[in-house]
Amino acid sequence: MDDMKEQQRATRPGGRSARVAAQVHEAVTALINERGYGNFTIGDVATHAGVADSSIYRRWGNMEALLADVTLARLNAQSPMPDTGSIDGDLRTYAANVAREITGPDGLALVRLAVALSSDEGRGPFGALGDDRTRQMQAMLDRAAARGEQVPEALEVLDHILAPMYIRVLFGIVPLTPEYLDGLVDRLLAGK
Amino acid sequence: MDDMKEQQRATRPGGRSARVAAQVHEAVTALINERGYGNFTIGDVATHAGVADSSIYRRWGNMEALLADVTLARLNAQSPMPDTGSIDGDLRTYAANVAREITGPDGLALVRLAVALSSDEGRGPFGALGDDRTRQMQAMLDRAAARGEQVPEALEVLDHILAPMYIRVLFGIVPLTPEYLDGLVDRLLAGK
Repeated sequence: MDDMKEQQRATRPGGRSARVAAQVHEAVTALINERGYGNFTIGDVATHAGVADSSIYRRWGNMEALLADVTLARLNAQSPMPDTGSIDGDLRTYAANVAREITGPDGLALVRLAVALSSDEGRGPFGALGDDRTRQMQAMLDRAAARGEQVPEALEVLDHILAPMYIRVLFGIVPLTPEYLDGLVDRLLAGK
Repeated sequence: MDDMKEQQRATRPGGRSARVAAQVHEAVTALINERGYGNFTIGDVATHAGVADSSIYRRWGNMEALLADVTLARLNAQSPMPDTGSIDGDLRTYAANVAREITGPDGLALVRLAVALSSDEGRGPFGALGDDRTRQMQAMLDRAAARGEQVPEALEVLDHILAPMYIRVLFGIVPLTPEYLDGLVDRLLAGK
């Protein structure tokens, strides 16, 4: 009975569980910015978020799962894959969305986290950004191919759209101007 | 007088000072691999290298300077900028050299270190890889331009040669095959 209530809470948007998740996500982002990746514990997150350690362990299990969840939630929430009707429009919107995320207030922390998690895991073409994200990217490319458009491969999008943006943010070569982003997409599609 | 002797030692190749530097560099690389960036002290490096803490502080001053020196020394020693007589040949050789470094036994540690230092510093287009490296790259491009070749900008080499390789190593999408590297160069030069 208690388990059922817990499950109901866990799936009810805006409920206590969603509030806890939001507080924990904010705490993780703040701690990454303050101390850097790897320099805080689950206990620190709990204190910062004002929740019990046990709530975090019960929901996420360990620090790596928690960090992966925060990164994924941030990237997915702020940047759903676009569906504009052309691969050109999709890629321009996608590049602009990612650029906005990774040059925002927590952008550098987010990219460092994605990089740190990816190298620990080595999962799939988008590393710790996850299988879901790779599937969404592939679905966007497949839609364009089904319309008869010439499309790049997902790994080419990684190489020539995402990788330059990530490295520029990591190396502090910002801002990523609209002209710069359009240039990345132009160059990628010129090869098709 | 002692200072003069110290300086002479410091510049004599193969002398005690060079031996200490080599031991310290090896210790840093080993500790990065064992524990990860940020999880060891100057004292740990000294113990591992079999030298006194004070030798490290006198020569490098602090951990960040030591880490930057190790990264630069590794990247420069193993990959001098090529001079093959054409920008095409130069870029292919450069890409192959960098790929060999960053996919070798310490490659991932080296890239993670470059990324970590770059984001702390935000110096120049190659971040912590340093001004020297940027100058060498620019000199290679200027030689080709002086021969009348159409050349990319240094930042385009970063975006479309280095960034994809770095991100693939970080995300565990290896090996970097000769065909893959040639494709990166072809694509970059096709835009010229």
